[in-house]
Amino acid sequence: MQETVPREEIALRITCFQELLRDHDIGLALIRQYADLYYYTGTVADGFLAVPVEGAPKFLVRRPQVRLAAGEIPWDLIFYSDFGEIPALLNDLGIPCTGPLGLELDVLPASFYLRFQAKLFPQTPLKDISPLIRRQRMVKSAYEIEQIGRAAAILDESFAAVPELLRPGLTELELSAALEYRLRLLGHQGLIRLRNVNLEMFFGHVLSGHTGLELAYIDTPSGGLGFSPAFPQGPSHKPLAPHEPVTVDLGACVNGYVADMTRLFVLGDLPAEAWRAYDLTLDLFRYFETEARPGVKPSELYQELLKMVELAGFSDFFMGRGSEQVSFVAHGVGLELDEFPFITARFSLPLEADMVVAFEPKFFLPDVGLIGLEDTGRLTADGVEWLTRAPRQVIKV
Amino acid sequence: MQETVPREEIALRITCFQELLRDHDIGLALIRQYADLYYYTGTVADGFLAVPVEGAPKFLVRRPQVRLAAGEIPWDLIFYSDFGEIPALLNDLGIPCTGPLGLELDVLPASFYLRFQAKLFPQTPLKDISPLIRRQRMVKSAYEIEQIGRAAAILDESFAAVPELLRPGLTELELSAALEYRLRLLGHQGLIRLRNVNLEMFFGHVLSGHTGLELAYIDTPSGGLGFSPAFPQGPSHKPLAPHEPVTVDLGACVNGYVADMTRLFVLGDLPAEAWRAYDLTLDLFRYFETEARPGVKPSELYQELLKMVELAGFSDFFMGRGSEQVSFVAHGVGLELDEFPFITARFSLPLEADMVVAFEPKFFLPDVGLIGLEDTGRLTADGVEWLTRAPRQVIKV
Repeated sequence: MQETVPREEIALRITCFQELLRDHDIGLALIRQYADLYYYTGTVADGFLAVPVEGAPKFLVRRPQVRLAAGEIPWDLIFYSDFGEIPALLNDLGIPCTGPLGLELDVLPASFYLRFQAKLFPQTPLKDISPLIRRQRMVKSAYEIEQIGRAAAILDESFAAVPELLRPGLTELELSAALEYRLRLLGHQGLIRLRNVNLEMFFGHVLSGHTGLELAYIDTPSGGLGFSPAFPQGPSHKPLAPHEPVTVDLGACVNGYVADMTRLFVLGDLPAEAWRAYDLTLDLFRYFETEARPGVKPSELYQELLKMVELAGFSDFFMGRGSEQVSFVAHGVGLELDEFPFITARFSLPLEADMVVAFEPKFFLPDVGLIGLEDTGRLTADGVEWLTRAPRQVIKV
Repeated sequence: MQETVPREEIALRITCFQELLRDHDIGLALIRQYADLYYYTGTVADGFLAVPVEGAPKFLVRRPQVRLAAGEIPWDLIFYSDFGEIPALLNDLGIPCTGPLGLELDVLPASFYLRFQAKLFPQTPLKDISPLIRRQRMVKSAYEIEQIGRAAAILDESFAAVPELLRPGLTELELSAALEYRLRLLGHQGLIRLRNVNLEMFFGHVLSGHTGLELAYIDTPSGGLGFSPAFPQGPSHKPLAPHEPVTVDLGACVNGYVADMTRLFVLGDLPAEAWRAYDLTLDLFRYFETEARPGVKPSELYQELLKMVELAGFSDFFMGRGSEQVSFVAHGVGLELDEFPFITARFSLPLEADMVVAFEPKFFLPDVGLIGLEDTGRLTADGVEWLTRAPRQVIKV
């Protein structure tokens, strides 16, 4: 099966983006980052999609050439070998850069920016278009939601294998590797794109007992030990032991789109404290499911959830510990794992229908481990429609 | 086993780096990128290692805090919550930034650079320290070569499983996933760091027949189809067929260090043309093995290899096709997959002992597929000492 993004959808995305450019007085955008390129072209290349505020985009490509020329790019395709050629190419194409030029300044390296400004466009103000792109991308189409649903489905299917794998002495890495293998066979593309250049991750975090309490160097609630200080996150060589939470947090990516999910397992039973945190987790899910609706401000939703946690006496253990608590309880997912919106005290855009978020309330209980769940869901007028659908119960083996 | 970088080694790395800072008139460097941080600290963090041209470094860290405080960081460890605090912190620590400030401008995002320049250090010229760091890191210590050797050893061990896996109808993805699973169980950390922000990869490229001819959007010789235009590289759902080359190109990473390897397999036998390219590949290996010596210029070595390819009549098929031929035949490996040196027409630094490179001559034969090999080796006065050691023969199943 050859996957393709519907042509009409791409045309619509470009039109919407051009409106954003007009609203922000940007004459021309040069889009380069892979997730953004895929969104606006349906493919990826080492190149730039040049989107003028009016008229058809042009796709300037360094490579691949033969493959793209054989594809169905709906716009002019122009090949170049060095990006010093770009200003002249734009002139030739009739879209000279006269007004402010839009670039993805959150992901383009400084050295690249400096060369662009000094050598290529010395007279042109360079503006950051990433906030516009992220804002556009945060509301998903039916097609996109279907893709995220495919990623969610293979998470559901893989997680179903955990009970038969779980046994004392199996290491976190062995459990993770077995699930990674299943995810790959089910069509996980492997690479999960992250926008924030300070984020890095592999499949996710399969943790147990005390490793669940190891906080990360990246902005995620859980971290784990990993097995080297070179990459101190994710599963370690620690063997699973009875009566400790085994927290399986994995992402999957199908046809470019990501879903994210966490479930809890235990050999034997958990201590009473863990069950209290688990019950609170379910309460938070019930609240989120009905209250995360179009028009709601993420900051208000976040404060309400924090209040519930405080009332239950778990504030010190929520989303990290002490000064290392992260400040979000949910993150958007789509072509990247860290999309808009973030459910946090600071995110200012109100929720809209067809945003897709991964909600992940998590508690770090001393002497117990990491208790929490995560599901990926689509916001609707009636509340959240979950795309990851495995039962939320703690699986006791 | 808790892995740690030897303390003396880290001290030496800092001293050498400070000499480079002095030579380039940089007063203070702020190191942030994970591979660089690991190299100079033995750990990773969301923060900055502040290295003044003289005196002890200070480690400014946002997170993780508890974990780092419990570790054995040999310098002052200072926690902050927002990087706006950094100029004041540096003042308090007695290392105010008076001269040029060094940053890794090839990897830091433009928006970050702009904030640093406008808000934090408006009076200070910002200089790119990445070339200095990359140059220092390209010559490896005995400890580092040992780590790369560990990654090489698990590649050797995983590749040994290919013959028992290979059968007609098995898909590229199924073969790749089975090898990925083995690599993980053997201790592959999963994440392989890439410095060039335009590069992205998963485990590597397991390709067969015509998919071996699909060139990439990234700067690698091979690409492959993948199974979605969102990530069109690596193994596809294509089933393996008799008499076509099965090219297995995988990386592994142990304790932060990478090795890279390619081997050829076939169900049945290959056509005569493939054997001619294979024999030429072995010739290129023999030449490289003896001639890649300290003092040699990469550009001259590259030209000699190209001459051999031309004499054999394979120029049009070497390292890609047409305008999509990549311009290198080997790349340095270490904490990143794309380290100095590059064996290319343009890389100007002469070879030195204890550089570690992955040499990968590859031929793209129409109607046949991808024929080539890759090994990771250390340069010595007597030629290359290979770290990946599996026999180079084509395994016929």
